[in-house]
Amino acid sequence: MMIEERIKKIFSLTKKDIDTIIVKNSNLNPSFFYLTGLPREFYEGAIAVAWKDGSVDVIVSRIEQTKKSELLFHTVKNLEETKKLLKQLAKDANCIGFDGAHTTVSDYRVMRRIIEKKRFYDVGREILKARLIKSKDEIEKIKRACRIVSKVADEIVDILKESVTEREVADEIVYRLRRYGARREAFETIVAFGRNSAIPHYLHGEKRLKKDEIVLVDFGAVVDGYVSDISRTFVYGRASERQKKMYEVVLKAQKMAVESIKEGMVFESLHKKVQRCIDKTEFRGRFIHSTGHTIGIEVHDGFGISTGCKERFSSGMTFTVEPGIYIPELGGVRIEDDIVIENGKAKVLTTASKVFEV
Amino acid sequence: MMIEERIKKIFSLTKKDIDTIIVKNSNLNPSFFYLTGLPREFYEGAIAVAWKDGSVDVIVSRIEQTKKSELLFHTVKNLEETKKLLKQLAKDANCIGFDGAHTTVSDYRVMRRIIEKKRFYDVGREILKARLIKSKDEIEKIKRACRIVSKVADEIVDILKESVTEREVADEIVYRLRRYGARREAFETIVAFGRNSAIPHYLHGEKRLKKDEIVLVDFGAVVDGYVSDISRTFVYGRASERQKKMYEVVLKAQKMAVESIKEGMVFESLHKKVQRCIDKTEFRGRFIHSTGHTIGIEVHDGFGISTGCKERFSSGMTFTVEPGIYIPELGGVRIEDDIVIENGKAKVLTTASKVFEV
Repeated sequence: MMIEERIKKIFSLTKKDIDTIIVKNSNLNPSFFYLTGLPREFYEGAIAVAWKDGSVDVIVSRIEQTKKSELLFHTVKNLEETKKLLKQLAKDANCIGFDGAHTTVSDYRVMRRIIEKKRFYDVGREILKARLIKSKDEIEKIKRACRIVSKVADEIVDILKESVTEREVADEIVYRLRRYGARREAFETIVAFGRNSAIPHYLHGEKRLKKDEIVLVDFGAVVDGYVSDISRTFVYGRASERQKKMYEVVLKAQKMAVESIKEGMVFESLHKKVQRCIDKTEFRGRFIHSTGHTIGIEVHDGFGISTGCKERFSSGMTFTVEPGIYIPELGGVRIEDDIVIENGKAKVLTTASKVFEV
Repeated sequence: MMIEERIKKIFSLTKKDIDTIIVKNSNLNPSFFYLTGLPREFYEGAIAVAWKDGSVDVIVSRIEQTKKSELLFHTVKNLEETKKLLKQLAKDANCIGFDGAHTTVSDYRVMRRIIEKKRFYDVGREILKARLIKSKDEIEKIKRACRIVSKVADEIVDILKESVTEREVADEIVYRLRRYGARREAFETIVAFGRNSAIPHYLHGEKRLKKDEIVLVDFGAVVDGYVSDISRTFVYGRASERQKKMYEVVLKAQKMAVESIKEGMVFESLHKKVQRCIDKTEFRGRFIHSTGHTIGIEVHDGFGISTGCKERFSSGMTFTVEPGIYIPELGGVRIEDDIVIENGKAKVLTTASKVFEV
């Protein structure tokens, strides 16, 4: 039912009159999971053929999980059988949709050789658009992922101790994410001490924690294929006056951003609002990345809350709000929460506390 | 120096007279890392332009790490500057190589729009071929990754206890991999108890361990971008006579396989040898996957030791040897080691013990 609706939605978003959408599974391709609900870890190389009426044929070499009764499984023994079946399924189609953003040139060429004399049309953008609005079930999974990261974020104060390394803290975070029910970390966990926190792309290294240093963490959890993403910043001991000021400004900007979100508001205008809020302080020019991004099957689930993005907030969207300030000699501060819009209202899903000095 | 050699090698393997190879970084694309040595986690969206003489131009939005003096960095501010620079760099090239197995259709179309009126040629296969023979430095990294999985495999006996879940054991494995120096697990850790061990694609679930059940583990470590991959099978308590027989047959086949490897031998013929070794026992037809695969930057690093693969073993290759027997009502047994061929001799890198009853 759920699958049927999302497939119909993709077709309705597509301007070209396509007859079918064909997607091959690989662990790089979120679209197979989206069109079938089948976990990417299994069904390597399986092919989904989705139809206008919301039905899906799945070509697999072996049925690894048959719970999804909405799907029509075809088992094949080898590549020859796959080719034959694919050809037959696409027989009456005139125009075939594919996901150009997640299909390799090699796979595309193979597909065009198998299915000859048809028109092909890239529906990658339409799939991303459909993914923007989450179903109840998808939001439930994201909420669970958010509860896990919130719990771990609140425990970081217990993990910190003098001379612990960034890597050790990252290991502990990942261990706890998994223990609390995450399948894995959603992306490489960031733990940055002291000046390292001023490098927004820093991951983690062997630096040891010293008293009064900044600790910036940024991590996520995967639950049933859906992610969360949280950042918190602490000082292990006492913060300097300037650091306190940085934290205050980021916290205020973050709060203001969340409170400003309204249905119909353009992504870009929220970013500009946050930018202005920080740029009118002494930290002008120190907010150097986007305000956030949509989350879902992927950590960056299609759209950034940044300059140039004309998408509009609406119910069912899930995204991060994560302003930050970075000063090389002082360190960085970033505060990131995950938000869902439900019945027109922005709701914060990551409830971890926001103490600074710990 | 290392980078220079591998690029020259790719060009020498290419039959078409290509002038340059252009690769865009993404976490799906191992070729950028291979051509530059730059970690994929950074440099998202960066572009490498490799030349016949082994030199590489790298277009980045920000220099995140400048240790690699062999590379020529160009920093750009936006997409317009990227396009302009790419166009200029490719100006005198006639034929451009790209990695079709790891380039998306969207990226390829963008590239063709930027660099007009040139011929493009897919060198994905040639890059895989070059990757087959590892340098000393690459082998060193794989050895370190092998030491870590061996240590963890030997500790599994301490993790097992009655009613522990598969997921708990997987969490503990991943935690220890990281603690001992792995950047992350190389793939989703497999822990299968009892009958679950008979499903070769099983990952891990909530099943609790009971006395006398089979425990099959299969996991890997990533060290500096290179992987290891190990499987061990235990019985938690006492094995039945039939299970002991299964284990004996797999162990014998695995040992025989490793001892048979010679430079010049075709991959496929090793697989057939293992197949015959198992098929002449009462477990005929129960070995249902390939004998192994090459390892390196990726867990499946290009080639399978399986029917149809005509590659020949040679010094500098690293790969797994992993026969298995699977019987639904009895469970599965798989024993997997990582091998390097050094000076013509196969050397086992994963040294974890092979006790069955624990």
